[in-house]
Amino acid sequence: MSINQATYTVVEGGSITAPKGFTSAGLHCGLKKTTRNDLGVILCEVPATAAAVYTTNVFQAAPLKVTRESLADGTLQAVIVNSGNANACTGEQGEADAYEMRAAAAKALGVNEQNVAVASTGVIGELLKMDCVRSGIAGLPEKLDGGAAGAEEFSQAILTTDLVKKECCVEVLVGGEKVTIAGAAKGSGMIHPNMATMLGFMTTDALIDGEDLQSLLRTATNTTFNMITVDGDTSTNDMLVTMASGLAGNEKLTRLHADWDAFAAAFTHVCQHLAKAIARDGEGATKLIEVQISGAVHDEAAGAIAKTVVGSSLVKSAIFGADANWGRIIAAVGRAGVPVSPEKVDISLGEIEVLRQSRPVAFDEEQALHYLQKTDTVVITVVLSDGEGKATAWGCDLTYDYVRINAAYRT
Amino acid sequence: MSINQATYTVVEGGSITAPKGFTSAGLHCGLKKTTRNDLGVILCEVPATAAAVYTTNVFQAAPLKVTRESLADGTLQAVIVNSGNANACTGEQGEADAYEMRAAAAKALGVNEQNVAVASTGVIGELLKMDCVRSGIAGLPEKLDGGAAGAEEFSQAILTTDLVKKECCVEVLVGGEKVTIAGAAKGSGMIHPNMATMLGFMTTDALIDGEDLQSLLRTATNTTFNMITVDGDTSTNDMLVTMASGLAGNEKLTRLHADWDAFAAAFTHVCQHLAKAIARDGEGATKLIEVQISGAVHDEAAGAIAKTVVGSSLVKSAIFGADANWGRIIAAVGRAGVPVSPEKVDISLGEIEVLRQSRPVAFDEEQALHYLQKTDTVVITVVLSDGEGKATAWGCDLTYDYVRINAAYRT
Repeated sequence: MSINQATYTVVEGGSITAPKGFTSAGLHCGLKKTTRNDLGVILCEVPATAAAVYTTNVFQAAPLKVTRESLADGTLQAVIVNSGNANACTGEQGEADAYEMRAAAAKALGVNEQNVAVASTGVIGELLKMDCVRSGIAGLPEKLDGGAAGAEEFSQAILTTDLVKKECCVEVLVGGEKVTIAGAAKGSGMIHPNMATMLGFMTTDALIDGEDLQSLLRTATNTTFNMITVDGDTSTNDMLVTMASGLAGNEKLTRLHADWDAFAAAFTHVCQHLAKAIARDGEGATKLIEVQISGAVHDEAAGAIAKTVVGSSLVKSAIFGADANWGRIIAAVGRAGVPVSPEKVDISLGEIEVLRQSRPVAFDEEQALHYLQKTDTVVITVVLSDGEGKATAWGCDLTYDYVRINAAYRT
Repeated sequence: MSINQATYTVVEGGSITAPKGFTSAGLHCGLKKTTRNDLGVILCEVPATAAAVYTTNVFQAAPLKVTRESLADGTLQAVIVNSGNANACTGEQGEADAYEMRAAAAKALGVNEQNVAVASTGVIGELLKMDCVRSGIAGLPEKLDGGAAGAEEFSQAILTTDLVKKECCVEVLVGGEKVTIAGAAKGSGMIHPNMATMLGFMTTDALIDGEDLQSLLRTATNTTFNMITVDGDTSTNDMLVTMASGLAGNEKLTRLHADWDAFAAAFTHVCQHLAKAIARDGEGATKLIEVQISGAVHDEAAGAIAKTVVGSSLVKSAIFGADANWGRIIAAVGRAGVPVSPEKVDISLGEIEVLRQSRPVAFDEEQALHYLQKTDTVVITVVLSDGEGKATAWGCDLTYDYVRINAAYRT
């Protein structure tokens, strides 16, 4: 999916309540030890066409089972989310708790239980404090808000070790009607391709075919959320849920619609923005790393190489140290498990060429140091000579703070 | 390969010169900025039956090409090794330098050029300072020593970021004759299954069939060196070379010999000892982590799970922090890419059971903290219920020092 930005407009400050029909809320119910929000909801005023993608981990948390069940008919009207506790590896009680969470939210919001998705994130293996959850859910309806305030409270409620909230909003014309797409996401550790400790929620007011929405979500995810890695770990709880209210007044979107490509590009933009925001906010990160691979035998090979490079602890440490150590980059390229012609590799750091045809280029170390120290986003470009395959992956540097954060997460 | 220790004896303080026929030496020739040894040699008084395994990285350093060529006939008489510079990504000049290193060593030692292996480790992409290498090689013969001193100098010469030298020596009876097997290895960063930034050298005085030696080396490597990971990175330079002088006076060993299993167990012991020593000395490590998997669908699946758990940055950080965070262990088990029955997983940390049938066990947090803080080797045991497959992998914790070491390796 290439993103042709000319076809849509980014709305600065836009949020998940910008698309018509959505309100949201968040509050602190007691699952987190701090006073930060830990319970949130997104509500659509009508049953929305919905789609989702889930973690590929063999172990899947209880909320995922419940959400899959709710989504079986392709419709959702609300998503209830908590942070502070993942409700994973919690057995039958955990499953019962996830069902109760769904029922309580449905009752409080006055919607059909089968139209409520449940998402949880946080510590694994501890039962949810259901008294907190119950009283929290009861308090949500009065806080529902269709403006920026409601979105803000919700965004805060889904964060764990995240330092910043991640939001994005775009507008695109469909048959002459303005359609809005927005998203919010969380995740900063246990982030790896194929849905990591990541929760993502997208809203749109587009009227859209359900199967085409699911298909678009999957396609967009593959080149965005599935191309980020913070630490190579994939969580038990990841999901990305999207709801389309259909209230924009547009002609119904299908993949055959003249404006499908524009909508898909706008949708993918939101996914990419959120994915990059997660990578940039990786635990302990000081920099976003973007790895662009081209000339691979095919796109899948390029993707494998991009993810191997951006996931290499040695590359990540070198970037943290502003060390133009391309030896680690080429070593990572070479172990990605895909064919590469070893004698024909070009590597650049930003605009600075460091390797040409697999031979070191004499470059200005001062210039490289300056680039690596001053830039907010380190771009590593690798050009192979094996075909037309290309891919981009995103990650972050490996820092003392990553170790500090993860050496004592539970304490 | 199971190791039946009853059939062989570990020789404390034994080294690569213990087997009959071997001498070694090491010195500082100027490739390292410090005054530590950076050039070493092992010499056999007769042409030795030899075998080797190499990195799987697509990019292979020049010395590997030269060593493969020397080993084509299954015979070696000497190995010349330098640290401080990997002679990788150095193009035609690098290849010429590796050939010159081989020729110079052959001349200095008075052996056939085709019987000399070359190994290098260190920074990638810089040409070897050949004046240092030439004068260094010229100085090696007078330092050759068949005792502990020669082995000590050699062991020091192959280290880079290693903190300690890694050696092992065992004795085993073959047809009533004492046969000695010894090894030395280096490696502490860029360590991952399939030959990492690892150089290993094994010597034995056994008389042994060349093909069977190569086969044994490969088998033993798969359950030892290929089951360790420090940071998931695989280098361009790894090799493990073994030379058998045949001077022990034993009946020739083949896989049909009555004492083959005893010899193989002794040989594998040396491999495992060196592999674990490398994992324990992982860059910045404070602890060895041993992950034992059983009950997997087959051994390969068990191996994949073991390596995924021991390679997880989150697991490694938690161990550094003495945090009994089994959620990260089960998350790693679940993303290993092999079938696992999610409801039937038992996990223990040392003797402390923390998960039974995928449900948390109430354990004494103080006891767990004490175990994780005080033990030198953290043993993570995962029992699945899917079959008979088992495997063990080794790694180390992820610490501030790993980041510090790798943020400024070149500087």
